[in-house]
Amino acid sequence: MLEQFKVTDKQAELINGDALRIVVSNIFEKLGVQEDDALLGADVLVLSDLRGVDSHGVSNMLKHYVTGCRDGSINPRPDWKVIRETPSTANIDSDRGLGSIITPKAMDIAIDKAKAVGVGMVTVGNGRHLGMAAYHAMRALPHDMIGVCMTSTPVAVLPTFGAEPRLGTNPIAVAVPANKELPFVFDAATSSVASNKIEFAHRLGINIPGGWVAAQDGEPIMEPIPSPTDVLGSGYSLLPLGGDRELGSHKGYGLGCFVDIMAGLLTGFGYGAKPGAPNFGHFVAAYSIDAFTDIGKFKDEMDEWSRMMQSTKPAPGHQRVYVPGQPEAEMEIERREFGIPLHSSVVDWIRDTCEELSVDCPF
Amino acid sequence: MLEQFKVTDKQAELINGDALRIVVSNIFEKLGVQEDDALLGADVLVLSDLRGVDSHGVSNMLKHYVTGCRDGSINPRPDWKVIRETPSTANIDSDRGLGSIITPKAMDIAIDKAKAVGVGMVTVGNGRHLGMAAYHAMRALPHDMIGVCMTSTPVAVLPTFGAEPRLGTNPIAVAVPANKELPFVFDAATSSVASNKIEFAHRLGINIPGGWVAAQDGEPIMEPIPSPTDVLGSGYSLLPLGGDRELGSHKGYGLGCFVDIMAGLLTGFGYGAKPGAPNFGHFVAAYSIDAFTDIGKFKDEMDEWSRMMQSTKPAPGHQRVYVPGQPEAEMEIERREFGIPLHSSVVDWIRDTCEELSVDCPF
Repeated sequence: MLEQFKVTDKQAELINGDALRIVVSNIFEKLGVQEDDALLGADVLVLSDLRGVDSHGVSNMLKHYVTGCRDGSINPRPDWKVIRETPSTANIDSDRGLGSIITPKAMDIAIDKAKAVGVGMVTVGNGRHLGMAAYHAMRALPHDMIGVCMTSTPVAVLPTFGAEPRLGTNPIAVAVPANKELPFVFDAATSSVASNKIEFAHRLGINIPGGWVAAQDGEPIMEPIPSPTDVLGSGYSLLPLGGDRELGSHKGYGLGCFVDIMAGLLTGFGYGAKPGAPNFGHFVAAYSIDAFTDIGKFKDEMDEWSRMMQSTKPAPGHQRVYVPGQPEAEMEIERREFGIPLHSSVVDWIRDTCEELSVDCPF
Repeated sequence: MLEQFKVTDKQAELINGDALRIVVSNIFEKLGVQEDDALLGADVLVLSDLRGVDSHGVSNMLKHYVTGCRDGSINPRPDWKVIRETPSTANIDSDRGLGSIITPKAMDIAIDKAKAVGVGMVTVGNGRHLGMAAYHAMRALPHDMIGVCMTSTPVAVLPTFGAEPRLGTNPIAVAVPANKELPFVFDAATSSVASNKIEFAHRLGINIPGGWVAAQDGEPIMEPIPSPTDVLGSGYSLLPLGGDRELGSHKGYGLGCFVDIMAGLLTGFGYGAKPGAPNFGHFVAAYSIDAFTDIGKFKDEMDEWSRMMQSTKPAPGHQRVYVPGQPEAEMEIERREFGIPLHSSVVDWIRDTCEELSVDCPF
């Protein structure tokens, strides 16, 4: 998270995470989601807020989920099923179910397969938004496994040299357990930035840096500009990670393609830009560490590796070198204690939604 | 490949790929490599040259391999073995064997496992340089599988905010079959650029762009500078993909960590920066498409996807949008017909080495 994206005290109310989880779960239930699923979906959103990944938390995503359940684009009670399976793989038709609810179940299948044969990989087609991808990858951690999650999302990102968006922000998340140190948790869009971060910047009325978006003709904008309202429909497109070709945008573009293939085409339900196709597909994988090497030795060595990274001498103007997942874990400690800062307009919307749906709102 | 990195006619001799493969194979044999292995190792180097990936071909790599075989750091006749195995995984101790020779064998094991249970993943520890990572990923293509290859290499890359290199360039390669269109072939360092490209730029006496390297104090250099001789020992370090934090270098850094974990720590033979450890570890994986969806439908949809990408309207100043692997495949057609342009100093070195080792050199 860039510093300027933190909600300032003036605009924010601090909301307790447990209270928020219950409210969100109750909202889901009123929309037709079963109790267990509602709790799971709420947990995905609120853990995102707790970890400081505000772009994928309640403030940015819940409104979309509520709208989707109401207009029928999201199926609150999906009849999801495994449509193809091998000892190490499965492919799921999620029946337009919310990805944040189906993907943890897909990951549980992957974990079971990894226990049995070493590796488990599960694709989820006909899907909807899955929230913070790291949530699903992290589900492998208590099993001493490495977790991976990728998701193919609606198009917003240009190919290198292109003037029309052809890819989603297509994030890749990885979680790896350590012993005494924090787990390694990586979660990043293959674009320069997640589109939610631009909506978030717009709400805060701040500039976005160069290298994030291209103009309508596809020319990368390499200087800061005021944040557009959003990306889709604004005339801007997101740039692949790297920004322009000299800085390596062909790498972000290629990684975005990889996600579109693994989480999109491999499901059999199409890719992000496929006309008329559902625009979300997911991929999760669990790798048993024990299948490759000794678990205890591996986790001790992860500790050693993590401490080496953290002990790196910082560059001028910086205090610390972080291991991926460390800023989010530190934020989680803070927000579990002091609450989640939600923009007052978001809190008002939650209160209104609760009133409309006859859900108790304790804040 | 950036245009300026092509060898110009004045400095180059055009060498036939088949002739070059035989010469390189014979050099390997004279260094103690068995005949089949020598041919395989030569094929990896020459395919790299044919595809225009000059940074990983004969001109940049053969000298290192010859030196390594002579000084004992590379074992020309390794007693490599699988040291742990499950139905979908294996871990290999490669006994200091050349990665370019052991990794194709590891990929064959992964392919066999994917045929049996859907997915195969093989790690290779105690390893040496594997050449062009895409070579190993592409080995899955004739089996209608998706191939992945990652390799953890000696440190040259800074963590975001760091002033000391902690990671290798740690490339990720992916190959995906299509039907009538070219396969998708992605192969990229998780740094802004592969270190070999800097040596190559230095040999040509040209500038490198901003965003590729940091100064000795860790400050990212965002303007073009004359190319240093190499990265290790020059005082410069490579930057992670993204360049600086605003442009997303934490993503390149995180991906580089992921490779270090999967191809390094997971082998049990250490990570790139581990003091005293062998500095190369490899990871290959094969995913059976049939394990997820119908192969024919998938490959037809890959064609449709590829044509969609290629038909993208170009941004100003560009003629075409490429699918990853397309420039290399087009270069291969050209170089198979007209030969591989090798810098005259490289050709002289090959001739000298042949004379020294009593190998016939037909050019």
